[in-house]
Amino acid sequence: MKINELDFKNGLIPVIVQEESSNMVLMLAYAGREALELTVASGLAHFWSRSRSRLWKKGETSGNLLEVSRILVDCDCDALIYMVKAMGPACHTGGKSCFFRALEV
Amino acid sequence: MKINELDFKNGLIPVIVQEESSNMVLMLAYAGREALELTVASGLAHFWSRSRSRLWKKGETSGNLLEVSRILVDCDCDALIYMVKAMGPACHTGGKSCFFRALEV
Repeated sequence: MKINELDFKNGLIPVIVQEESSNMVLMLAYAGREALELTVASGLAHFWSRSRSRLWKKGETSGNLLEVSRILVDCDCDALIYMVKAMGPACHTGGKSCFFRALEV
Repeated sequence: MKINELDFKNGLIPVIVQEESSNMVLMLAYAGREALELTVASGLAHFWSRSRSRLWKKGETSGNLLEVSRILVDCDCDALIYMVKAMGPACHTGGKSCFFRALEV
């Protein structure tokens, strides 16, 4: 599976970030082609920030970089997993994962 | 965190489906409010099929239902995890997970 076979919707593809050592899901973000190419080239997770409308190297200010060891593609070619080693908390709240709350039902 | 606090974009929120016993990520899909409410009420994963533009009970034809034990919400309230026990392969290809291919780099 190559980058040009991926199904970018409005230029973006959702990316699940998963810690390789534990399989913990750390965050969900979005990548455009440029972010994906930079991730592949650098081995560090890059995304497209929808709120800031700009390319975003994860950890560029916090130092909490994500080293990407593998990228997985789903059956429909419209979702990715970055398998990572995290250099610090993934969440801007300081949590290891962004998914630290349960839905109350 | 309650359903009415979630940030549905165009009526949908992305849902990572993760196997509780292994932490394996099985698929990524989308839920609207109705799909989420049916998931909570039934304990079985429901989604909104974007390709078919209809509510979709996962496994309704294949029998490969997903029992949802917990639902996690991310820090921005715009992504969910269904923690599940899978009754069979999650992927329509017969694979346990939809993420069975690596991106070639």
